[in-house]
Amino acid sequence: MERYLTRIEPADEAAMRAATERQLALTKPAGSLGVLEELSIRVAGMTGVCPPAVPSAAVVSVFAADHGVHAQGVSPWPQEVTAGMLANFTAGGAAVNAFAANNRVDVRVVDVGVAADVSGLDIVHAKVRPGTRDMSQGPALTGDEVMAAIQVGFDLADQLVRDGYGCLLTGDMGIANTTASAALIATFTGTTADDVTGRGTGIDDRTLAHKTEVVRSALMLHDVPATDPVGVLAAYGGLEHAALAGYILGAAANRVPVMLDGVIAGAAALVAQAIHPAAIDYCVAGHRSAEAGHAVALKALALQPLVDLDLRLGEGTGAVLAYPILSCAVRALAEMATFESAGIDDQ
Amino acid sequence: MERYLTRIEPADEAAMRAATERQLALTKPAGSLGVLEELSIRVAGMTGVCPPAVPSAAVVSVFAADHGVHAQGVSPWPQEVTAGMLANFTAGGAAVNAFAANNRVDVRVVDVGVAADVSGLDIVHAKVRPGTRDMSQGPALTGDEVMAAIQVGFDLADQLVRDGYGCLLTGDMGIANTTASAALIATFTGTTADDVTGRGTGIDDRTLAHKTEVVRSALMLHDVPATDPVGVLAAYGGLEHAALAGYILGAAANRVPVMLDGVIAGAAALVAQAIHPAAIDYCVAGHRSAEAGHAVALKALALQPLVDLDLRLGEGTGAVLAYPILSCAVRALAEMATFESAGIDDQ
Repeated sequence: MERYLTRIEPADEAAMRAATERQLALTKPAGSLGVLEELSIRVAGMTGVCPPAVPSAAVVSVFAADHGVHAQGVSPWPQEVTAGMLANFTAGGAAVNAFAANNRVDVRVVDVGVAADVSGLDIVHAKVRPGTRDMSQGPALTGDEVMAAIQVGFDLADQLVRDGYGCLLTGDMGIANTTASAALIATFTGTTADDVTGRGTGIDDRTLAHKTEVVRSALMLHDVPATDPVGVLAAYGGLEHAALAGYILGAAANRVPVMLDGVIAGAAALVAQAIHPAAIDYCVAGHRSAEAGHAVALKALALQPLVDLDLRLGEGTGAVLAYPILSCAVRALAEMATFESAGIDDQ
Repeated sequence: MERYLTRIEPADEAAMRAATERQLALTKPAGSLGVLEELSIRVAGMTGVCPPAVPSAAVVSVFAADHGVHAQGVSPWPQEVTAGMLANFTAGGAAVNAFAANNRVDVRVVDVGVAADVSGLDIVHAKVRPGTRDMSQGPALTGDEVMAAIQVGFDLADQLVRDGYGCLLTGDMGIANTTASAALIATFTGTTADDVTGRGTGIDDRTLAHKTEVVRSALMLHDVPATDPVGVLAAYGGLEHAALAGYILGAAANRVPVMLDGVIAGAAALVAQAIHPAAIDYCVAGHRSAEAGHAVALKALALQPLVDLDLRLGEGTGAVLAYPILSCAVRALAEMATFESAGIDDQ
């Protein structure tokens, strides 16, 4: 991993200063594009260029995996739904497909650890193992498995940038993956199971209380310090969280923005931050999900979400929904006239 | 006007019920697309069809006009900037051009009352008069002028729907138009000048205090009841507000969604609501602007903004920025697989 991490540098401050100055010259009152001005300045810092190029293409990578802790009854959905949804993604029938078609974002589906055999699907096959082990009984993964899953995400980011994508979006699919997310977020933010365990895609009060207890017990069982991110991933999983952390690190190594989806991506970004803090310079929070732990993660990452519309689906839907805001922000910085070029008196 | 108003009907409740039911069958946990589910149901009600068609094309109409009250020093910008920005729109150099190009929204610029001669520009020429009269000294417009400007907006909406646009977005340009907006919003919401007068595109504390006093005095001078919307527009203007009210009524008459931009559109929507309350069934609030009066207007309209990113530019930027959220919402309802069609067990 060290070999990869040396490629990651913080955002380029000179490009950010140039973008800040350029914003003042554009034909609009200073500051009137609000958060989009800050976002465009951040993207200049990521790419190291001012103005940054408008991404010619964007892609959402949906990392899919299953979770041994599903056996504890933390989700009302059968584990087979993970594989079923992968088939739905390839058929174009899921929400992320509809959003991606609408916003001209390509979709890559990656099996990094689905329990079922999905070898017949036209997706990226990079299964590290068929689901994690049950975190409530012991470590979910070995250290080698964690490293292999991180590598899957990092290598995919490298490949996608080579393929010409200028913005990478995160997606995820995995029944019970909000349980692993809660354990990760609690560990990296120093909060409790109560603070970060939510209803996922929809559970009742009784199941929520049980899920919270499962997370609390797992945190006590493993008690891995936040300073050991690979150990934390080994304790709780999931394989998609590890791959997403690698993907975020890979985007940073390639100096391209990575648009985060919801709570799974937030948990993975905390892992990436623990591995290399500068990786967060390349992260944009697409939205705030309705899941409790997500707000906790965003606060720890110091990221402001672009969209806040009570989505709690995952798949990358929130990232894809927010992507046009990023491209609008960059396009305004890159393409707007200046007061001078437009011949308008700017007071 | 009566002839037009009879074409406006409330949202279709049967289509909304069908959309509510369809949302439950789609391959996602019930409610997991949050506000986008409600939005898709509203659009079904507007169009009267379930699922509604994804708009094949969208257009932002930027209604431009000047304001006599500018003479009172309510804005730091010279009035000539209105015409200067129209030239910038036609050259493609403004923020709304960048956003519109990014989000595949066409741009129409309409002179409904610019003070300067802009006859040389390739825009829609529908000048009712060269700017309003100064509301602080007397009525800004005659009743006939108000009706003519409303007609401009209504007729343009009719034409755009005939041209194939499935979603109309509002835009505006007019130095000092937040002053007229404040007077309109105060009148229709029963609030005070202090509640609704803001910094527009950027004024200092002293100018804000003066602008607020100008609005307060004008409200006392005219004191037109909210039950007389044409009289209210005649008192304060502006010509773009009148045209926007007509445009909103026209969208409603044609059963297409109209995406509102910021505070100018919010004021115009209050006018439209006073003329025909069902018009608001067809309105979607694109964003919440940083201008104080906008939140007051949205509350009175009972509309929730889709985006809240501190924009305070106008031009239609907030509406264009939010448009992909509407089209994503509609596309998900129209194109997603159902649990049954995808062969997934939905518990």
